[in-house]
Amino acid sequence: MRGQPQEFDRVLSSMCTEPHPVAREAAERFLATNPGDPATYQSVAELEDEAIAGLGEIVGLDDPAGYIASGGTEANIQAVRIARNRAVSSTPNVVVPESAHFSFQKAADVLSVELRVAPLTDDWTADVGAMRRFCDEDTALVVGVAGTTEYGRVDPIPELADLANDVGALCHVDAAWGGFILPFTDHEWHFGHADVDTMTIDPHKMGAAAIPAGGLVARDGELFDALAVDTPYLESAKQATLTGTRSGAGVASAAAVMAECWPDGYREQYERAQGNAEWVADALAERGFDVVEPELPLVAVPVSEELFASLREAGWRVSRTADGKLRVVCMPHVTREILDSFVADVDRLQATANINT
Amino acid sequence: MRGQPQEFDRVLSSMCTEPHPVAREAAERFLATNPGDPATYQSVAELEDEAIAGLGEIVGLDDPAGYIASGGTEANIQAVRIARNRAVSSTPNVVVPESAHFSFQKAADVLSVELRVAPLTDDWTADVGAMRRFCDEDTALVVGVAGTTEYGRVDPIPELADLANDVGALCHVDAAWGGFILPFTDHEWHFGHADVDTMTIDPHKMGAAAIPAGGLVARDGELFDALAVDTPYLESAKQATLTGTRSGAGVASAAAVMAECWPDGYREQYERAQGNAEWVADALAERGFDVVEPELPLVAVPVSEELFASLREAGWRVSRTADGKLRVVCMPHVTREILDSFVADVDRLQATANINT
Repeated sequence: MRGQPQEFDRVLSSMCTEPHPVAREAAERFLATNPGDPATYQSVAELEDEAIAGLGEIVGLDDPAGYIASGGTEANIQAVRIARNRAVSSTPNVVVPESAHFSFQKAADVLSVELRVAPLTDDWTADVGAMRRFCDEDTALVVGVAGTTEYGRVDPIPELADLANDVGALCHVDAAWGGFILPFTDHEWHFGHADVDTMTIDPHKMGAAAIPAGGLVARDGELFDALAVDTPYLESAKQATLTGTRSGAGVASAAAVMAECWPDGYREQYERAQGNAEWVADALAERGFDVVEPELPLVAVPVSEELFASLREAGWRVSRTADGKLRVVCMPHVTREILDSFVADVDRLQATANINT
Repeated sequence: MRGQPQEFDRVLSSMCTEPHPVAREAAERFLATNPGDPATYQSVAELEDEAIAGLGEIVGLDDPAGYIASGGTEANIQAVRIARNRAVSSTPNVVVPESAHFSFQKAADVLSVELRVAPLTDDWTADVGAMRRFCDEDTALVVGVAGTTEYGRVDPIPELADLANDVGALCHVDAAWGGFILPFTDHEWHFGHADVDTMTIDPHKMGAAAIPAGGLVARDGELFDALAVDTPYLESAKQATLTGTRSGAGVASAAAVMAECWPDGYREQYERAQGNAEWVADALAERGFDVVEPELPLVAVPVSEELFASLREAGWRVSRTADGKLRVVCMPHVTREILDSFVADVDRLQATANINT
């Protein structure tokens, strides 16, 4: 067959990673199963229960409801759909901080809800006062992000949950990327810390499961009733997921890697990643770059258009924030050696640029 | 790790199947790639182009637009979304035959469009006259099914495309299951036969690719403009898919299995499946069951509640139509030996039931 998969040794932009060996093994074994048809594929349906129970432990819920989704986009769309379908208002709106992932723009288009985007504080976190000013009696959902895509920041979730309560809205936390690292920090971000209703937490990001394994978790299973459609030709009677057929590989790999890594393996992974982020942030700061302090293992740094282009040309898979900062996401596959070689390339390409100017 | 995947030797209900060996190999190799981020994962993005070109050959399009989706549900939702977003009406409706998959109910809820469900002919196909009576100036989409979920029937696609044209709507064909078998029949079902705009055709069903590999194909790439959202932190600027992160395993396996099997491998697979369906239909008819003639490799047969329950208890994964007929979907994994053993169990369980009454 033609084509080779991307090697991971120069991928600094992705929020996905190489699956953990136990995740890969489980994905390969369950490749031909469909948890969307649980009466036919019973063993993978049981693994999905295990995976959701595992997510519950991580997010502070004894009796979590939820399912393994295709990814964070589906989970975010579904959280908005739950809020929309339960709203009394016929013109519901959703209030998000400007740092919210673009999947909320997609959700707004798909679900025909108004998206209200509130500005951030100077530290790129949700400004609760601004969020409050965007809320009104039609607000169905208040969203906080625990581990933002661009800067790895954590919004003040307890305050946002209080705000949601005050205005009679649901509260959703997008911890798609942050969920598997935040348990090892002092942040208050989950169901045990605040009156959160739904959460996105993706095993296939920092959980090191195989794609596709996103996660949508809810405090109360009754929230999913707003989504259920009848499934006439399946032996199961209702389906609350957005997709129909789903990947057993993703589900099995999520269950396997959580059983293997929670909590100690994930703690070690977090410490390594955070150490790497601080190392590369220091290395770049020493070279005069105005680095944004990495609160979680994600470094954002303003670079020239020219340096960015040269790095891409040199084979580095890097991407930028909306305002042009280069992002280095310190996923598990990003080792100190890779970062060493990245910094060396920055030095080399800067030197070349200086000679040329 | 706990749990074993479902064995396929008693699965008669699924519209998915064991992946072809080349599909499995490609899926395992590309497990850690994300075609939703094409600037990072370039090689799998190229494979997606190959997969869409392959689908184009199958559906009679020289220059197809499209993408590999999580499955037929996503593809159907996206087709409805295209039509809704392009509609002039603020209260668009979608006209489907009663045989349409339940994903259209899901699409209607998600997208807030009105679904109008037209009754069928006596042969369980779309009744074009009835469909026409359901259309009006707010109709944004007319849907036909090429290979229905319950009876494996093919709607009169050219007439439905004409109807869509007449009322100024788009025409979508759901060939999720049928698309990889219809090329070897006399049916008129695709872009080459009729003025179809969009089509669902799933490599992970009769295409024998690994889950998740659904397909959405359009005559005109411009149709996808109605779906595009900005993607600030990715190097690619727009994203028209419903999900964000996507499975490289599904994409790579779809490209690999189509390169291997189209057309001869798929023709042989169709002939074997159709032969098996006719064989089991005859075997059940000989035993006095009122079997529905299998036009495609799917047999529907009315059975007693008791026999159905006994078959499930004996380990058969079978499911029913909305009006209670047992369905036997003759997927590639369903061999003559399996069907032999199924018919023997029907005999045995019927005999037991007769003794007990």
